[in-house]
Amino acid sequence: MANDQIASQDLPPWSREEFEAKLREKGKGYHIYHPIHVLMYEGKLSQAQMQAWVANRYYYQIAIPQKDAAILSNCPDRELRRGWIQRIFDHDGSGHISEGGEGGIEAWIHLGHAVGLTREEIMSLKLVAPGTRFAVDAYINFAKQRPWQESVCSSLTELFAPHIHQQRIDSWPDMYPWINAEGMQYFKNRLTQARRDVEQGLAVTLDYFGRSRELQMRALEILQFKLDVLWVMADAIMLQSTDVKVEGRDYLRQPVMDVS
Amino acid sequence: MANDQIASQDLPPWSREEFEAKLREKGKGYHIYHPIHVLMYEGKLSQAQMQAWVANRYYYQIAIPQKDAAILSNCPDRELRRGWIQRIFDHDGSGHISEGGEGGIEAWIHLGHAVGLTREEIMSLKLVAPGTRFAVDAYINFAKQRPWQESVCSSLTELFAPHIHQQRIDSWPDMYPWINAEGMQYFKNRLTQARRDVEQGLAVTLDYFGRSRELQMRALEILQFKLDVLWVMADAIMLQSTDVKVEGRDYLRQPVMDVS
Repeated sequence: MANDQIASQDLPPWSREEFEAKLREKGKGYHIYHPIHVLMYEGKLSQAQMQAWVANRYYYQIAIPQKDAAILSNCPDRELRRGWIQRIFDHDGSGHISEGGEGGIEAWIHLGHAVGLTREEIMSLKLVAPGTRFAVDAYINFAKQRPWQESVCSSLTELFAPHIHQQRIDSWPDMYPWINAEGMQYFKNRLTQARRDVEQGLAVTLDYFGRSRELQMRALEILQFKLDVLWVMADAIMLQSTDVKVEGRDYLRQPVMDVS
Repeated sequence: MANDQIASQDLPPWSREEFEAKLREKGKGYHIYHPIHVLMYEGKLSQAQMQAWVANRYYYQIAIPQKDAAILSNCPDRELRRGWIQRIFDHDGSGHISEGGEGGIEAWIHLGHAVGLTREEIMSLKLVAPGTRFAVDAYINFAKQRPWQESVCSSLTELFAPHIHQQRIDSWPDMYPWINAEGMQYFKNRLTQARRDVEQGLAVTLDYFGRSRELQMRALEILQFKLDVLWVMADAIMLQSTDVKVEGRDYLRQPVMDVS
């Protein structure tokens, strides 16, 4: 590893276009390829499995504004903050669901209703797997503890998100006709938002990390960290809700003693 | 959940003996029952799988002194610190391996050698799964961010550890005869250390959380969090190294693009 770093220090930085291409290439590790998302795309998730996904993913949704506030809290650049603050409005909202104005968290609760969860079930976080908590908390702690440019870079999985949102909008009405249109609103909103957001995040990343090969390598490492967060969440949801065999035997879920 | 809390506030605290019994009952969710540990106990792990376990678990070993230092850093009680500091010596060491004096981290590296890993492979952390990192980091962050009494309580999975260490000492020479005696030293050391450590941690927990039913419930919740840390680590090692089928299909491991 020390040798790798010395080697990358000696190399000239990639051009802006090459660097962006390297970042986009990391999309091959995006959670769209995870078994739980493949099953989802193929229309093979049961209602209970879809509920597990929505309930776990809710923990990610509520973490996003705190993650973005952590970035603002570390960032002395007013121009960056003026743009970035929009993300908090996008998730926390202020207006009507029809305009996406109630915000992403509320839209996600509507998706929860559409798959048969009550607001109380979703908001209690009782259905959130420990692996989901640890992965999402790692993302928030990263944003709290690292320089803001690194946290901005970690948001770049947004590069790959519009594709997965569009895929759901296209395939779910056929695959999961029991999910109503209101449940799909989150993905429709994010389609526009993620495309706009990624412009700012990508510009910061290409500028800041583009100054040396070593920084460019660091940016790829950070993007991998965020890909890992999403993949480990998908692992946790899979282990919680699907039929898993380990070396031919049923996977045992942790026996949790409720001693209340 | 709000209702549960109101209910537990109205109840008298369990007696010291009842409370300890409730804590010990949580052992039913200890990772000894996780599929990867069951396979290990049954002698069914391959050398590669044993390597994955040792390499991942190393990340936990090196986190422990930082976790214990975080507890010291939050603790104004000199008496507690005088006892607790021994844990840092136990892991970081100072003397000879034959007396356990080189410390737990070094003993773990010897276990790594015994299963065929080099010191460099272990220390590079290249074999550590992201799920392991997120779980272990959650434990360190807990110790940094929570009151020291809560962090002390979170260490109480030690209540259940001597059994698993003894089981390995008894069964591995038959099950895994290729692991040499030096590789087993870690477990032999911990057998004594964990029994001594747990006395201090248990006394603090029974005193501090014993004052009300609500605090006792909180202690059980904290112990569950730590059980979750260990279980999610085991999940990550299992997904990294065993044959896993999801709804009948091979589990796909994340394609990681190495763009260096």
